[in-house]
Amino acid sequence: MTVNIAILGLGTVASGLPFLLEENKEKLVRLLNDEIRIKTVLMRDEETIAEARERGFDYDFVLDLDEILADEEISIVVELMGRIEPARTFISRALKANKNVVTANKDLLAIHGRELRKLAQENQVSLYYEAAVAGGIPILRTLANSLVSDKITRILGVVNGTSNFMMSKMVGESWTYEKALSEAQRLGYAESDPTNDVDGIDAGYKLVILSEFAFGMSIENDDVQHEGIRTITPMDVEIAQQLGYVIKLVGEIVEVESGVFAEVSPTFLPQKHPLASVNGVMNAVFVESIGIGESMYYGPGAGQKPTATSVLADIVRLAKRIQDGTTGKLFNEYVRETKLASPADVKNKYYFSVETPDTTGQFLRLTNIFTSENVSFEQVVQQKGDGSRAVVAIICHRIARTQLAQIKEKLMAESDFKVLNVFKVLED
Amino acid sequence: MTVNIAILGLGTVASGLPFLLEENKEKLVRLLNDEIRIKTVLMRDEETIAEARERGFDYDFVLDLDEILADEEISIVVELMGRIEPARTFISRALKANKNVVTANKDLLAIHGRELRKLAQENQVSLYYEAAVAGGIPILRTLANSLVSDKITRILGVVNGTSNFMMSKMVGESWTYEKALSEAQRLGYAESDPTNDVDGIDAGYKLVILSEFAFGMSIENDDVQHEGIRTITPMDVEIAQQLGYVIKLVGEIVEVESGVFAEVSPTFLPQKHPLASVNGVMNAVFVESIGIGESMYYGPGAGQKPTATSVLADIVRLAKRIQDGTTGKLFNEYVRETKLASPADVKNKYYFSVETPDTTGQFLRLTNIFTSENVSFEQVVQQKGDGSRAVVAIICHRIARTQLAQIKEKLMAESDFKVLNVFKVLED
Repeated sequence: MTVNIAILGLGTVASGLPFLLEENKEKLVRLLNDEIRIKTVLMRDEETIAEARERGFDYDFVLDLDEILADEEISIVVELMGRIEPARTFISRALKANKNVVTANKDLLAIHGRELRKLAQENQVSLYYEAAVAGGIPILRTLANSLVSDKITRILGVVNGTSNFMMSKMVGESWTYEKALSEAQRLGYAESDPTNDVDGIDAGYKLVILSEFAFGMSIENDDVQHEGIRTITPMDVEIAQQLGYVIKLVGEIVEVESGVFAEVSPTFLPQKHPLASVNGVMNAVFVESIGIGESMYYGPGAGQKPTATSVLADIVRLAKRIQDGTTGKLFNEYVRETKLASPADVKNKYYFSVETPDTTGQFLRLTNIFTSENVSFEQVVQQKGDGSRAVVAIICHRIARTQLAQIKEKLMAESDFKVLNVFKVLED
Repeated sequence: MTVNIAILGLGTVASGLPFLLEENKEKLVRLLNDEIRIKTVLMRDEETIAEARERGFDYDFVLDLDEILADEEISIVVELMGRIEPARTFISRALKANKNVVTANKDLLAIHGRELRKLAQENQVSLYYEAAVAGGIPILRTLANSLVSDKITRILGVVNGTSNFMMSKMVGESWTYEKALSEAQRLGYAESDPTNDVDGIDAGYKLVILSEFAFGMSIENDDVQHEGIRTITPMDVEIAQQLGYVIKLVGEIVEVESGVFAEVSPTFLPQKHPLASVNGVMNAVFVESIGIGESMYYGPGAGQKPTATSVLADIVRLAKRIQDGTTGKLFNEYVRETKLASPADVKNKYYFSVETPDTTGQFLRLTNIFTSENVSFEQVVQQKGDGSRAVVAIICHRIARTQLAQIKEKLMAESDFKVLNVFKVLED
């Protein structure tokens, strides 16, 4: 029995599916004793249909989702349109029509995932989205199927290829943020408005999804703290290197006693940390757990073929579930009460870069502020000033986020101090 | 309904299971709606039972496997005795008694895997062994469940922790092989007879298993070429570094047109290759494929908790299959005809280190040998000689294994040339 699928949209990722189906035809038939066939494709208008035919695609093209939903031969609907609407409405309707759904739409899942999962459950179908996090890296299914036997304590992810490409250039080749952005735009990695990538919003969406699989908790998108890479200067990069670190935009979810804490922020990674050598547009998810200890999953975070491979993995899994009669299970079955960590429980080292007047006694004033909050220094570097202003870079010992807030506030209250940057520092 | 399991042997890995079951109790109950319980443990004699009770273990201890096989409450038998016998007999009997089996026994699977899988199929039960390759890294299930949608072209693995620990010391701290071995033995990483680890035999077992999951082919253990790390000298390490490489013991399985080729050998890895920074006892499996492109799976290759976590992942998966009524499936369902590659199709760059008389004309003689086989040099380094002997290190362009054999033979035929080492060089 052929497994018939319908695709919503025929953009870059969708166009990669026929290639994979053809290349893996023999393998898939051996595994499933069935063939997976793209039967129907939903298109926007007649013009795009004509274009698709010209590009050599030969499917049943339709303009109305109802034709797909009414087709009893179609058991899997693959949404690859992206953005929120109409994807949200289409997926909802497909689930209500008892179709299993595969999507790569991380924005949608991060914002409306709970509602869509509920719909899938109510209609006894499955909703899979391996491609939504870290494109080609099979991280979600691995968390759901293999790391079930472990207790995860922290996830660290380099999960935005665009910003990682930029940081790799800023660190490896001493480029400025502006030069790195313009190169990323030239190569098509960054959009003309790069906000989602460089401000950590895209990485934040992925943390929302990862927190479900790794911690069984559905945090809201607004619960993820964001800080982007716009403010990182060549001086920060240089000091990091001098002190044995590499700066990257890292997404972190950590579980402490009071709950989970999630943030995306520029992070000082020890040079020997496995994430430190994840460069260019590559992604990696680093998992700390009580059983395995440390493991890392590395691969391309985006791109036509990698993403299509993850989408096809979902399709194959669903095809097997259809054969076994076990559809209707949640992609991630680990669900518990969501608790957000109290800031007093979340502790890290931090890097502070502060511009001060280049006069006697400034360093003492700075030290006093930290001392008043019971925070001691681990490493200090004073950059040569221009005679009037100097920059002091400090890495402090582990402090709670509550202490961090206090210190930042006190530093900012001093009118002649200028806090240039404060970044998290990962411990060795 | 409680899922009752029996364990054969209560050594290091088995002793890690109660810890994980306790720590993940809540999670597992949420996932399974059932509890996983270690009911019975097979022990060697009364003395070991008494010892286990003293260590605080409270299970039904038995001395006769038949008691486990006759117990209808027990659906999963976990073999953690290691070595070939009696593990092979016990697993066979368990499968014949319709028990699902989990094992971490790579030697057994590499040598008798086919026979055991056949038994499992005949008896409609499952045989899982995630822990058999790269301990804590969930690589097998990921290959079977996620990379089904991809076509893998090459697997490169740092899959022996002991030799990787030694190589990390030899490369990172310029230790000799002897010093590294003695430290590995002192730390308990290497046995008094280190043959299996340092000669690549253990890594070879893992390649046999990986080739099934990645390529659907059951190669024999004897089909894996082995070369160990005993002959690597500080000079090799230094030259590698000078030329931009790191030496590691790497297991490779590659598919070329005529079939698959598998070998374990010291390999020059470009310094920027993700495997190059896998250090100490850590393992990693690097996968090249047409869909994802490049992905890597990194984690501890051994150890009580990591290995027990993989074993428990198998148990949880089986518990789900028992609930769903879908046991009896092969761990890896991708099976096709096994074809071994013709050596003429397997091509790599190679490093040659050759000791020659330190007199005029030797380099020309060396060059003539390579030229006679149509092989050109990419990089050449001549080490300062002692006046009578010099060492020439050469990295050649890509050549077939047939050419490699010819060159080696011709070099060895020259009585005043001494071939010190020939290692594979991975391309950028």
